[in-house]
Amino acid sequence: MNMKSSIGSFILILTALHLHAEDGHNLWLRGKSTGSVNIVCARSSSTLSIAKQELEQGWQGKDEATVVLAIKKDKAIKGDGFKLTTNGIQANTEPGILYGVYELLRRQQTGQSIQEVISNPSYERRILNHWDNPDGSIERGYAGLSIFWRKGENGYAVTENDKILWRKYARANASIGINGAVLNNVNASPLMLTAECLEKVKAIADVLRPYGIKTYLSVKFSSPSLIGGLKTSDPLDPDVINWWKTRVKEIYRLIPDFGGFLIKANSEGQPGPQDFGRTHADGANMMADAFKPYGGIVMWRAFVYSPNSTDRACQAYNEFMPLDGQFRDNVIIQVKNGPVDFQPREPFSPLFGAMKKTSVMAELQITQEYLGHSIHLVYLAPMWEEFLKSETWQEGTGSIVARTTDGSLFPQKHTAIAGVANIGLDANWCGHHFAQANWYAFGRLAWNNQLTSEKIADEWIRLTFSKAPASNDWNEYFLAPVKQVMLESREAAVNYMMPLGFHHIFAPQDHYGPGPWWGPQGVRKDWTPPYYHQADTAGVGFDRTTKGSDAVSQYHEPLNSLFNDPETCPEIHLLWFHHLSWDYKMKSGQTLWDEICYHYDKGVQQVRQFQKVWDKAEPYVDAERFSAVQSKLRNQSRNAQIWKDGCLLYFQQFSKMPIPYDIERPMNDLDYIIKNFTKDRP
Amino acid sequence: MNMKSSIGSFILILTALHLHAEDGHNLWLRGKSTGSVNIVCARSSSTLSIAKQELEQGWQGKDEATVVLAIKKDKAIKGDGFKLTTNGIQANTEPGILYGVYELLRRQQTGQSIQEVISNPSYERRILNHWDNPDGSIERGYAGLSIFWRKGENGYAVTENDKILWRKYARANASIGINGAVLNNVNASPLMLTAECLEKVKAIADVLRPYGIKTYLSVKFSSPSLIGGLKTSDPLDPDVINWWKTRVKEIYRLIPDFGGFLIKANSEGQPGPQDFGRTHADGANMMADAFKPYGGIVMWRAFVYSPNSTDRACQAYNEFMPLDGQFRDNVIIQVKNGPVDFQPREPFSPLFGAMKKTSVMAELQITQEYLGHSIHLVYLAPMWEEFLKSETWQEGTGSIVARTTDGSLFPQKHTAIAGVANIGLDANWCGHHFAQANWYAFGRLAWNNQLTSEKIADEWIRLTFSKAPASNDWNEYFLAPVKQVMLESREAAVNYMMPLGFHHIFAPQDHYGPGPWWGPQGVRKDWTPPYYHQADTAGVGFDRTTKGSDAVSQYHEPLNSLFNDPETCPEIHLLWFHHLSWDYKMKSGQTLWDEICYHYDKGVQQVRQFQKVWDKAEPYVDAERFSAVQSKLRNQSRNAQIWKDGCLLYFQQFSKMPIPYDIERPMNDLDYIIKNFTKDRP
Repeated sequence: MNMKSSIGSFILILTALHLHAEDGHNLWLRGKSTGSVNIVCARSSSTLSIAKQELEQGWQGKDEATVVLAIKKDKAIKGDGFKLTTNGIQANTEPGILYGVYELLRRQQTGQSIQEVISNPSYERRILNHWDNPDGSIERGYAGLSIFWRKGENGYAVTENDKILWRKYARANASIGINGAVLNNVNASPLMLTAECLEKVKAIADVLRPYGIKTYLSVKFSSPSLIGGLKTSDPLDPDVINWWKTRVKEIYRLIPDFGGFLIKANSEGQPGPQDFGRTHADGANMMADAFKPYGGIVMWRAFVYSPNSTDRACQAYNEFMPLDGQFRDNVIIQVKNGPVDFQPREPFSPLFGAMKKTSVMAELQITQEYLGHSIHLVYLAPMWEEFLKSETWQEGTGSIVARTTDGSLFPQKHTAIAGVANIGLDANWCGHHFAQANWYAFGRLAWNNQLTSEKIADEWIRLTFSKAPASNDWNEYFLAPVKQVMLESREAAVNYMMPLGFHHIFAPQDHYGPGPWWGPQGVRKDWTPPYYHQADTAGVGFDRTTKGSDAVSQYHEPLNSLFNDPETCPEIHLLWFHHLSWDYKMKSGQTLWDEICYHYDKGVQQVRQFQKVWDKAEPYVDAERFSAVQSKLRNQSRNAQIWKDGCLLYFQQFSKMPIPYDIERPMNDLDYIIKNFTKDRP
Repeated sequence: MNMKSSIGSFILILTALHLHAEDGHNLWLRGKSTGSVNIVCARSSSTLSIAKQELEQGWQGKDEATVVLAIKKDKAIKGDGFKLTTNGIQANTEPGILYGVYELLRRQQTGQSIQEVISNPSYERRILNHWDNPDGSIERGYAGLSIFWRKGENGYAVTENDKILWRKYARANASIGINGAVLNNVNASPLMLTAECLEKVKAIADVLRPYGIKTYLSVKFSSPSLIGGLKTSDPLDPDVINWWKTRVKEIYRLIPDFGGFLIKANSEGQPGPQDFGRTHADGANMMADAFKPYGGIVMWRAFVYSPNSTDRACQAYNEFMPLDGQFRDNVIIQVKNGPVDFQPREPFSPLFGAMKKTSVMAELQITQEYLGHSIHLVYLAPMWEEFLKSETWQEGTGSIVARTTDGSLFPQKHTAIAGVANIGLDANWCGHHFAQANWYAFGRLAWNNQLTSEKIADEWIRLTFSKAPASNDWNEYFLAPVKQVMLESREAAVNYMMPLGFHHIFAPQDHYGPGPWWGPQGVRKDWTPPYYHQADTAGVGFDRTTKGSDAVSQYHEPLNSLFNDPETCPEIHLLWFHHLSWDYKMKSGQTLWDEICYHYDKGVQQVRQFQKVWDKAEPYVDAERFSAVQSKLRNQSRNAQIWKDGCLLYFQQFSKMPIPYDIERPMNDLDYIIKNFTKDRP
């Protein structure tokens, strides 16, 4: 063995030792202490104990340094915010101290400077919505069964292993500032309010509490009649009002810091106040009154649409705007980011900024229902950043979506933001190692809605993929290219799935593959893709201009005018707002059809490029996560091809124009895709 | 409508009228007469009637011209050859006249000059081998059921539709000089010699006869005991000898011009003379003696191998060379082009040229058992040309394979060439429109083993894809690029399936997809890919050098020396003859592993390029054949990807080297491919 190869072997051994088998269970919480730290803290509590333990376990500052944790009122510090000082952390509350500790450790572990700074949360409540069912299944869950619920005789039993897992979950959330969890699906089971179920909620709340996390529940609006023995669930009925008051009281007896309810009412078949001739405000306020004595809140979803409307995108606005100002101050209207449903790209919902006398919160979807499930690598922060920074013009320039919800523009007693969780029993929590970044990013943006997706990706990669000791070039050959992949990944998904304003052309049910052709007789039209793409030989796209559904008029000047004219409408939203001829001339000079083709092809090429980047990164990652991500990227690559081929060949039947000959030809016949991929995942 | 678009529409209408729906049933026989012709012919017969009819139907020469068909002995004209003169055709035989007519029409229809020329066939017998079973199935058939046989009660009945189809078949064969057809599978059913079966053979022979085509049968060597009631099938047993004589006599009573037998004996479980302690010569000669009185021949296959041998590639030579000179002069040993089995690329079988005192004929495979079935567009003429022009060195320079079989090098009483047919009941006969070109090319090469694959492709495209009247640029935009695709297609298949001398790494049974990993316990080793690729961490390839199986020594100097040394062995055969380390340095300077990767990737890119060429050719082809070929190319493209991914990921387990990062990454995990593609076609 010559010198060179012996050094090589030595490095290989070192690397092998470092890059041990790795299932991703540790998320971004990997920093190990490199020295000791002296902690000074006048008080003690379970939350402060956690803060101290974290400091000791993860300290990477000066050896033997002293850190002071001080709970001391300071008007500059808001809510659970904190002040980072050169010698410690100051906060108004115990969770504030804990958040400061995590920030300090994060800065140490990512090599950022520690300087005096005050960090206040953008939202009072930063909440995960778990769409978990009492039987353990998760609606739109792609990472295994529920961490909270399980099927079977002992479904409500709580084991030590449950508590260990919940504690890890709570720690991960606290580390990024998440302080609330709705423990069950918005399509709620009435069982959730039964005594044995609430006992389990109490057990969960007890584990989450020291980490500053409040529990919330989704409830079924018709619970009074379903499990309460009442004849009605009419929100103005005194017995109903009383039933809810009793239920809430009972909950607070078990869980004194309970957060509140999340309600999906009169939406997709769920019961609601309209079943009794009442309004959303009647329903929400009745519940809010029950919570008033305890400081709880009601999050009332604006995700409503009916099969008869000519444009689903208009309906939430039409239904809720007339109620603006009629809601109690402990009601927050929870509005999905876009007007339709968590699509790869939508314009922001026009309710943001329009409801000026009502508290409004954004509902983001962390789980990738429409973005490749846990198969595609799609980093969602760029999408959320695009949304939060969208200019609504409702209060002049600068009235971006973020400010319409964080209390800086309108008086809101409570502010909040919600993310539909992507968490399950999979060892790596999220199915795809990179899907952890979306959980992370949601928390970070909920804490600070001004953060850039680039900054969050940088942090997450540094924390999640430890730098190998032999890899001095890690920044150049791992961090930079992998971050680039993350930042580009959402636009790639838009390209290969639904570019230029296309939306909801998914295969039915599972929302994974393409399905622009899907529209069987008897299915309500607004559940079929042709309703959304409106392709015919004359053109393609949904006419939402003043001559069409007039959805544009729900936006404030100058947006409504800009959106209304295809020449000024941003091309990313073109087919959202316009039905245009296939030979419509785009800004590039190409026809709309050609541009559609190039976008789909670009998406495929981008995924192939991601594969190259990842394969090259192999020396810098542990083998287990490397292989897992490599395999997912291959699957994504195949699926991107299916998307491109399926959509282009389907739309070509209307455009009757050739796919530009300089791009790669389809690999699949349309018939083959329809037969093999409409319902099932490849 | 402006002038330009109105002209465009006019051209479109013209094109639409011309490019009518087209199922490919007419093969290359599409020329319609453009004027009248006066035919002078002193004799009359059914063959000459066909000749005259063809001239009248397809005449594209000077209107009112006179053509003289003259049967007149001429020593310069051999066998069924002919002389094309300025005013007609002269031949020794009636089929000679017919072939001359087809040549004349072909020249007219492809725009070649008509000049005085003598054209003699390279082989006396130019035979299709149909691997058709009495139940109508076809072994390795990918174009529907048999045109000759069918299952069921009336399986032996002959309908008018049968005769119409057989006549079309006979005409297509005659047009390219094929003059023989073995009507059934080499894995022969003993039923073939029963009276009712022979009655059907007679009916077929009667249809084929006027087109100059003789019928042959494959027979089972053990027929005497299986259907003859004898206790043995020992070829030296007088009863057995007598039984065969009686059978042959009976056949000639029905079919006076019967061609002879094709025998697969002691091969892959088929019975043969070795079962009785006799040699192949004993078996073949016994049968040949029975045929002697009638002028019939016995084609005895050299496709033999046993599970115990260390190298299957050596066995035919080992078994047959000792028998050289022991066969009757009406026996021809039928040898597959390569030493193993119709692989995408093999070196020629060393029996060619080595057996100097025995008639030897080549067996080519027109049906694409190992070349993508009727899914992949693979034009086989370049492979056959490579084979026929291979230098054996057996009689010094110029002793190419073609000459070792056509009687120009060795005295052979009979010469022949066989092609395993790709014909079935599909409307387009061959499954893939371009597979017709392989039937065509076989016939043309059998007639003239000096033809180039380029010349044949040119002819075939011109005859098969009519030039649209509005397409003055047809030559440039259709003929040239499509011909290029055809000429490149076999090398592309080699690249994406088994480059650099890889062979027989197919999925089991169907021989369509990759299967280098396939080697279950209990399966004989020489039926599993690892036997052929011999991959291990030290390297890959089958060592057939003097230090290995010594197969090289079956070749004549200097080939044996050239093949024996990896530095001089042609790289196309490298892993056929050598087991080399993964980092073996290739002539390009790259490692063997990298070169393997680049070849697989190149194959995929080539197919994608074929797709582009074909899609661009759309304006020049009828819609029906355009779509059919487009769809096949997409399937081929997917399958090429599966081949590349499967082989590279499998071999990478041994090479432990990265796939070069400048080539496209696999789209499929190895597990996924093994699970989904090992047995089934995608």
